[in-house]
Amino acid sequence: MIVVMQAGSTEEQIATVLERLEEHQLHGHLIRGEERTVIGVVGAMIPPELREELAHFSGVRETLRITQPYKLVSRELRKEDTLVNVGDTVVGGPHLTVIAGPCSVESEEQIMATARAVREAGATMLRGGAFKPRSSPYTFRGMGEAGLKLLAQARAETGLPIVTEVMTPNDVDLVARYADVLQIGARNMQNYQLLEEVGRTNLPVLLKRGLSATIEEWLLSAEYVVAQQEGNPKVILCERGIRTFETATRNTLDLNAVAVAKRRTHLPVLADPSHGTGKWYLVPPLSLAAIASGADGIIIEVHPDPDRARSDGSQSLNCENFATLMPRLAAVAIALGRKL
Amino acid sequence: MIVVMQAGSTEEQIATVLERLEEHQLHGHLIRGEERTVIGVVGAMIPPELREELAHFSGVRETLRITQPYKLVSRELRKEDTLVNVGDTVVGGPHLTVIAGPCSVESEEQIMATARAVREAGATMLRGGAFKPRSSPYTFRGMGEAGLKLLAQARAETGLPIVTEVMTPNDVDLVARYADVLQIGARNMQNYQLLEEVGRTNLPVLLKRGLSATIEEWLLSAEYVVAQQEGNPKVILCERGIRTFETATRNTLDLNAVAVAKRRTHLPVLADPSHGTGKWYLVPPLSLAAIASGADGIIIEVHPDPDRARSDGSQSLNCENFATLMPRLAAVAIALGRKL
Amino acid sequence: MIVVMQAGSTEEQIATVLERLEEHQLHGHLIRGEERTVIGVVGAMIPPELREELAHFSGVRETLRITQPYKLVSRELRKEDTLVNVGDTVVGGPHLTVIAGPCSVESEEQIMATARAVREAGATMLRGGAFKPRSSPYTFRGMGEAGLKLLAQARAETGLPIVTEVMTPNDVDLVARYADVLQIGARNMQNYQLLEEVGRTNLPVLLKRGLSATIEEWLLSAEYVVAQQEGNPKVILCERGIRTFETATRNTLDLNAVAVAKRRTHLPVLADPSHGTGKWYLVPPLSLAAIASGADGIIIEVHPDPDRARSDGSQSLNCENFATLMPRLAAVAIALGRKL
Amino acid sequence: MIVVMQAGSTEEQIATVLERLEEHQLHGHLIRGEERTVIGVVGAMIPPELREELAHFSGVRETLRITQPYKLVSRELRKEDTLVNVGDTVVGGPHLTVIAGPCSVESEEQIMATARAVREAGATMLRGGAFKPRSSPYTFRGMGEAGLKLLAQARAETGLPIVTEVMTPNDVDLVARYADVLQIGARNMQNYQLLEEVGRTNLPVLLKRGLSATIEEWLLSAEYVVAQQEGNPKVILCERGIRTFETATRNTLDLNAVAVAKRRTHLPVLADPSHGTGKWYLVPPLSLAAIASGADGIIIEVHPDPDRARSDGSQSLNCENFATLMPRLAAVAIALGRKL
Repeated sequence: MIVVMQAGSTEEQIATVLERLEEHQLHGHLIRGEERTVIGVVGAMIPPELREELAHFSGVRETLRITQPYKLVSRELRKEDTLVNVGDTVVGGPHLTVIAGPCSVESEEQIMATARAVREAGATMLRGGAFKPRSSPYTFRGMGEAGLKLLAQARAETGLPIVTEVMTPNDVDLVARYADVLQIGARNMQNYQLLEEVGRTNLPVLLKRGLSATIEEWLLSAEYVVAQQEGNPKVILCERGIRTFETATRNTLDLNAVAVAKRRTHLPVLADPSHGTGKWYLVPPLSLAAIASGADGIIIEVHPDPDRARSDGSQSLNCENFATLMPRLAAVAIALGRKL
Repeated sequence: MIVVMQAGSTEEQIATVLERLEEHQLHGHLIRGEERTVIGVVGAMIPPELREELAHFSGVRETLRITQPYKLVSRELRKEDTLVNVGDTVVGGPHLTVIAGPCSVESEEQIMATARAVREAGATMLRGGAFKPRSSPYTFRGMGEAGLKLLAQARAETGLPIVTEVMTPNDVDLVARYADVLQIGARNMQNYQLLEEVGRTNLPVLLKRGLSATIEEWLLSAEYVVAQQEGNPKVILCERGIRTFETATRNTLDLNAVAVAKRRTHLPVLADPSHGTGKWYLVPPLSLAAIASGADGIIIEVHPDPDRARSDGSQSLNCENFATLMPRLAAVAIALGRKL
Repeated sequence: MIVVMQAGSTEEQIATVLERLEEHQLHGHLIRGEERTVIGVVGAMIPPELREELAHFSGVRETLRITQPYKLVSRELRKEDTLVNVGDTVVGGPHLTVIAGPCSVESEEQIMATARAVREAGATMLRGGAFKPRSSPYTFRGMGEAGLKLLAQARAETGLPIVTEVMTPNDVDLVARYADVLQIGARNMQNYQLLEEVGRTNLPVLLKRGLSATIEEWLLSAEYVVAQQEGNPKVILCERGIRTFETATRNTLDLNAVAVAKRRTHLPVLADPSHGTGKWYLVPPLSLAAIASGADGIIIEVHPDPDRARSDGSQSLNCENFATLMPRLAAVAIALGRKL
Repeated sequence: MIVVMQAGSTEEQIATVLERLEEHQLHGHLIRGEERTVIGVVGAMIPPELREELAHFSGVRETLRITQPYKLVSRELRKEDTLVNVGDTVVGGPHLTVIAGPCSVESEEQIMATARAVREAGATMLRGGAFKPRSSPYTFRGMGEAGLKLLAQARAETGLPIVTEVMTPNDVDLVARYADVLQIGARNMQNYQLLEEVGRTNLPVLLKRGLSATIEEWLLSAEYVVAQQEGNPKVILCERGIRTFETATRNTLDLNAVAVAKRRTHLPVLADPSHGTGKWYLVPPLSLAAIASGADGIIIEVHPDPDRARSDGSQSLNCENFATLMPRLAAVAIALGRKL
């Protein structure tokens, strides 16, 4: 940490800062510049709250952090990529992950048809929501456990592992009985009890980035989960669009964040161009772009009849469009030295 | 709802839209312009999902909503201001509400000293966190029930009602045993299970706006709570700063939102300049501005020794600064025809 | 400046940084922490480009600036408020400035009627656009010099000084022949040739904040103007709304920025609630809030018949609403120890 | 245009709207719903200002636009892609455009070395700034005409066409004497006099998107240029990063905007990952992603010695990194059915 004093700070003010540092067994290293004094803080363990505290000591202009607040998920700690095993597939290695399926499970017919179609086209996992967060209390919120059972049925037939969202700590046990990967949605990225609860299951967790979460906050949320897991971290990050001023798209898929996250953490990173853009016709170009930006795979919404989808129809591909996209993804993957 | 067809849409495409409307007992009213055809949708009840669905029918350019998605909290439903009774005080009437206290309850000494000081200066309620959401798993997360007990002790002595945050559905019963007002924090504005749970307690709920929530989403979250409450709505809205590109402040307190919310809903609206700005020296000017923008009161952080606060110290006023602010707030209130 | 090395940087990498500092007659002060080394840079004059340069030296993690990049406009340089004289009025002192008038000058009748009405109600200056920036090439772009002549005629009759926008360096001489204050619009906040040109006229300059400009960039643009002016700085800052994700208002008037700017610079700061919100019915509450946040005045759009305004009608007050607002502003001003 | 009346609007209010429409030879088509009345406006030419005007008629809740405000650049007007010829190359066809070079021209040695290196690696044009917009008045602002001469010399030797920025209307003639493509920077996207002036030269124009410009505003600025050009439109759009809340990158390169722009306009679209991210190590992944998202090419900063660049060094590739990137771009281009 660096403590920047105001121009004209007094010796007494500087001494007060140094004393507080000593209370924490830290050493303050003084640099007296032409304009102002700066204090470099050195020591074994700087308490996270101390920076905020010192920031409004009298005579202090600001405090600057020089370390990242996350540890276990940091690439500084662990250089090599973390691979997350899900069923027979591996997330994070040379093979790209393609998770496909409807926004919500709506019926046996719908989920089975979709599961068959996406497996046929080459998807590696099946997604589908049984519990749906909806901003209005008056819209469809998912089939609940009945939906989970249908997902399990689809897995039994197709062999595709299941990714499905859990929204509240009380549902974690239930969802964990069916799911292969527990998804934490964007709205819950900072639902800390939920993060801890899913961490304790030891199932892989797909952690979506919050709509206005910084990359640092996203990695801190991953840290919450990993801090609960024993040994092998099983968190898969997923960029899914941020909120900006632009209204032509529902959100702004942030592929910069994919590239930054790949550099800062050893965890695998996926992208979700369906939620990221909110428009089905933008899903193919942004899926290709996501792969090219270094993502370890994508998660996209596919619905056999998007016109009649009960949620998010306007961002779903139909099965035919999905099947057309897959060889294009494969071609780009190969160009990048990876494969589907 | 308005369905805007693409320039050059075919009669068949228009017919398909009209058919789908009829399936829902809705009538499509055709307007054929020079450039394109537009369909006005008329009927008793338009299903919320239908707009999304139609948006990607072939030949459709976009669909536009012309009604607000919230009902119970809308001022179109109820013209007069909702007053929320808390202890002896009323939120939303001519008297402004001033809720003050520390970010976190840290000790008996700290909370009692603060409670006395803020009551002395004229605050109408006491705030203090016993359960704290923190973006890092390595920082102080509150005293839990011990903190709630200290808050109750402070209420017993000072008579000030207590506002405190609840973070997860499982804690609602516990917190409700102590609190006079249940606070939903910004990160939980779209934690729907939590919204429903606090709605069922029938206690007043202070609902903070999410960091990147639109005003519409904020009111929809209020709708979740009110839809659970029987009869009298007891939701107090609270603007607490949004996330923008500006880095000089921690967040951007959005007083436009206060004025807009006062116009769109009958619920009372407060502002939180402490979290809204993140800097203690910005709290006084923005508190005055909040009142002038039409807020029904403010909630601010006061700490007897902000330099040693375990969280949010840099945005807390000390007791003396708070006491200095109060008469200034009172003067502005009177200038606006209200009072403290 | 602080240079933060990566964990594990080599002695050679550190030496390379120190050498480069020496090339610039700067001294690097080493702090070796447990985790990483940090270099505090000390010297008479750090070239602005050096921070960027060092940022990607090998072994460097990041570089941190500890001084503000603006000088002349900084309150660290000059503690007392700058007062800007315009005609008989003073911007920045105890008397609040109220600049009112139509978005565009449209006709003699319109501008004379507005000028009389706003003077009658107590405005201290008249605003009106003769050159209008419009995002579409197909909309009305102002009357040009004919509009300037009408403004001069309104000044002759009412005595109100004139504030009007200049959009391009070539027009500065022309506009300067008529205007008392040259306005730089939000879109031109970083039109550097224009900033220099208006600086050279030595007329007062009203500098609007760009739609997505940080406070620091805004002050840097003021620095451009002041650096041209001889002696007495005559820049009046004006916050006019920033672009955020919120769509309920046209922009988000940022009163945090008013309070921050008042703290960082000695220049006077106004607010423009008309452009800031884009809705006439939000102008009164946000005008009051602006004053309460510490602004030295406001600039608002008033039109005798907003329904027929050729631009920005939906954010203009009519003369009656303006007359109603003024005593409310006066009451709040008095409550704050100021006056209209 | 659609005029949405408030719930409970009166017949008189509706009649007033209809009358105003008739003044403009427009027809108002009434749709009376359960909740409110909506008026569809039909007619040959709706004046752009009318929507704003009607928006605050009494009884009106809001007005909705159903057409895009740009015409000449719209894909609705012209289905096939516009190809822009620059020297021997074509922007917008199957061959991708790669424009490379330093941020600023700094010396003969620097620009000649870069030009040779980027031609060698396969770039199709040379970029380099002679006039630089800088947010601080104290930083290097380019070599001016001497820089233009060096660019011309580099073209003479390498055959690469030159792309260089013009910042102010007065410089257009000068820059046009040297440049093959006139670049309009992000800060000047809404500098309308400049847009008109470059439109009149009939040279190709590279129009960067403003830092917080919506896609619609960007296309409207293109419309300004094209409206000046006779016959064949010669505007090349360039996405270069938007301003968001994220601080890990300098800007957020918005590849959604590339895909949206390709759909809405017939003009070619490039991406600038150097300014878009601000970090040299993010340039390769985002360059690949830009191509995959459908961009017609990229413009990137290459400097022979980025550590000593006088501007933007931290986002420049050195010549070796650029040479390594090119075959990777070529591989992805081929996978997409295009070529370098």
